[in-house]
Amino acid sequence: MTPLRTDADPFAFDCLAQDGRARAGRFHTPHGTVETPIFMPVGTLATVKSLDPDDLHAAGAQMLLANAYHLHLRPGDELIRDLGGLHPFMQWSSPILTDSGGFQVFSLETLRTITEEGAEFRSHIDGSRRFFSPERVMQIERHLGADVIMQFDHVIPGQSDAAAASDASERSLRWLDRCRDEFERLRREEGDAHGHPQALFPIVQGGIHAELRRAAARSVRGAGDWLGYGIGGLSVGEAKPDMYAMLDVVEPELPADRPRYLMGVGFPEDLIEGVRRGVDLFDCVAPTRMGRNGTVFTSEGRLNIKRHEHRSDKRPLDEACDCAACRRFSRAYLRHLYVSDEILGLRLLSLHNVHFLLSLMRQARLAILEQRFESWSRDWLLRLSSRASTSP
Amino acid sequence: MTPLRTDADPFAFDCLAQDGRARAGRFHTPHGTVETPIFMPVGTLATVKSLDPDDLHAAGAQMLLANAYHLHLRPGDELIRDLGGLHPFMQWSSPILTDSGGFQVFSLETLRTITEEGAEFRSHIDGSRRFFSPERVMQIERHLGADVIMQFDHVIPGQSDAAAASDASERSLRWLDRCRDEFERLRREEGDAHGHPQALFPIVQGGIHAELRRAAARSVRGAGDWLGYGIGGLSVGEAKPDMYAMLDVVEPELPADRPRYLMGVGFPEDLIEGVRRGVDLFDCVAPTRMGRNGTVFTSEGRLNIKRHEHRSDKRPLDEACDCAACRRFSRAYLRHLYVSDEILGLRLLSLHNVHFLLSLMRQARLAILEQRFESWSRDWLLRLSSRASTSP
Repeated sequence: MTPLRTDADPFAFDCLAQDGRARAGRFHTPHGTVETPIFMPVGTLATVKSLDPDDLHAAGAQMLLANAYHLHLRPGDELIRDLGGLHPFMQWSSPILTDSGGFQVFSLETLRTITEEGAEFRSHIDGSRRFFSPERVMQIERHLGADVIMQFDHVIPGQSDAAAASDASERSLRWLDRCRDEFERLRREEGDAHGHPQALFPIVQGGIHAELRRAAARSVRGAGDWLGYGIGGLSVGEAKPDMYAMLDVVEPELPADRPRYLMGVGFPEDLIEGVRRGVDLFDCVAPTRMGRNGTVFTSEGRLNIKRHEHRSDKRPLDEACDCAACRRFSRAYLRHLYVSDEILGLRLLSLHNVHFLLSLMRQARLAILEQRFESWSRDWLLRLSSRASTSP
Repeated sequence: MTPLRTDADPFAFDCLAQDGRARAGRFHTPHGTVETPIFMPVGTLATVKSLDPDDLHAAGAQMLLANAYHLHLRPGDELIRDLGGLHPFMQWSSPILTDSGGFQVFSLETLRTITEEGAEFRSHIDGSRRFFSPERVMQIERHLGADVIMQFDHVIPGQSDAAAASDASERSLRWLDRCRDEFERLRREEGDAHGHPQALFPIVQGGIHAELRRAAARSVRGAGDWLGYGIGGLSVGEAKPDMYAMLDVVEPELPADRPRYLMGVGFPEDLIEGVRRGVDLFDCVAPTRMGRNGTVFTSEGRLNIKRHEHRSDKRPLDEACDCAACRRFSRAYLRHLYVSDEILGLRLLSLHNVHFLLSLMRQARLAILEQRFESWSRDWLLRLSSRASTSP
């Protein structure tokens, strides 16, 4: 691959190596360069639940995700704008990406109505009536000031039929045009928000229907000279083979010189399968949510710390892990903290899971650079699946 | 003061300077030397709630407290014994003190019956019937393996009349004899637990009755050659002037060459008043409990982070503080975390409060060493009380 970066492009993506379709690259942003493939921990409310920015840096996190929907409701995107944007607010000086709220509005189910104009919904906090349009979301994401902002899209259940998937995909494309126009208008009229450029990423929809996915990818490409591409509407209830098949369909349609971001995907096996299919960026709440529920990833499958068998076990969660939990604490202690509802337990389990996914992507990157991704990924997938019987 | 330490005494106390009755010293233990006066954060269940050992070291914590009662119930003192004791279990290699459970049993109120033999009570977790005798508590505290272990005592409400206070104080003295005998028997027959000696501290009781307090202090001194002295049964509902008066009574009765530990006391003004009256060690759950309730200590009094006035405030909690929260985060961000029920908020507020008390004692120590404790403490007490109106 020839790096296409120019000094004029603050969001250049350098593909350093390719092994099969798997890519090792560098994604540049105004807040620093991200080494891909990478997992982005999710800081829904401008905090990765239970973790400190120092914990995240120590675990090797390079880029975080935050949610426009949640931050609009609490503490309010205008407040964050007045405080200088997300970076100083949450004291994270590395890159940030904001999700547009499409998925959160989708998750509200009965609390929302989607029309061509946008989505009307009720706040899950106080029931107040709200309205998100593509234009409104661009304003919110500008207030938040992330490096990468996602378009507002129409997300539907993973198993939706072709008619529903086509309808949502077409609407997402029309909303993409409106997002782009508003994004450019704001930049033209008001300049960069918070003193740095932002990159607007489109989202390829199309459900689990290959023709729709292919058409969506082509339409998205035709709608602008994008700095990166989101692949959305996956990991929302469809079968895993369907998700992988859609990646196989979309990947050849996307330009090689821009990063691809598979939204909401975060189990170890899915990250590996995604990298194998040319994905560069991932995010998911799984590591922190599962950590708070007492389940951790290990190099031999999942482990449920609540189980009685760990009661007096002096071993770390994962002998192969060098995270701040595994370097110090026994399963016995972590189990004690967890069953006693101690906050430190939630934090250490979350930290381990986040570290695990970050480390997995570092290993994947090295394997790609050394042109041994296939054997590396085969070994990992075998180990992860061999202990599936111990899952919670 | 002449340091009385000898190499043969692993729990020697060196009084380095005295200013009025306030003392700056060094308390030696098998897990290191503690610079007094000092505040000990409370790790009830072998974790200082929401904080990591690394956080505590960074805040300057030197010695922690853990609770025999709680650890007996969860995860069980025998399990902790099997795992090598509290130090490796909780990964705290500095000194630890365990409270005996006297206060916790007292707090159970209707769930317990106290007889001469001991205290029968029901677990607050599962209602199971338990029995603590002085002998049993010595065994438990030996299993836990702290550096300093407290006698099992009979704690009563702070406003108890003289008859009740005398009864509890006399019983505590008889229990002290039994604790000492069992402590010595176990050491004689089984050697040191976990490879290091432990120091048994007696507890001076006597309610808010000067004559009882004086008599208790003398009786305690007569009952053994103690390595340090607990002052108990204060900060349990009595008026603050009563607490201070009891310290005035007890202090002259205690030997100058051993540390004095005022149990369960942890508000800034009480620490200062305690140091002024010759106290060396303090502990309290207040900083972490208040932190989890959204209230922080500052050099100008208390601050309730929930208040709307902090919503867009870019200032740290305390301009004069250099803790890991104040060095980085605004009141606006901490308020957002707190009102959003984010774990990071609980942790940062707890960390600030613990850091605040540790820093306060470091400043007190320096003032004593520089023979300016009176003016230092007067300034502090004035500042703390002048903003009492902003308390929650």
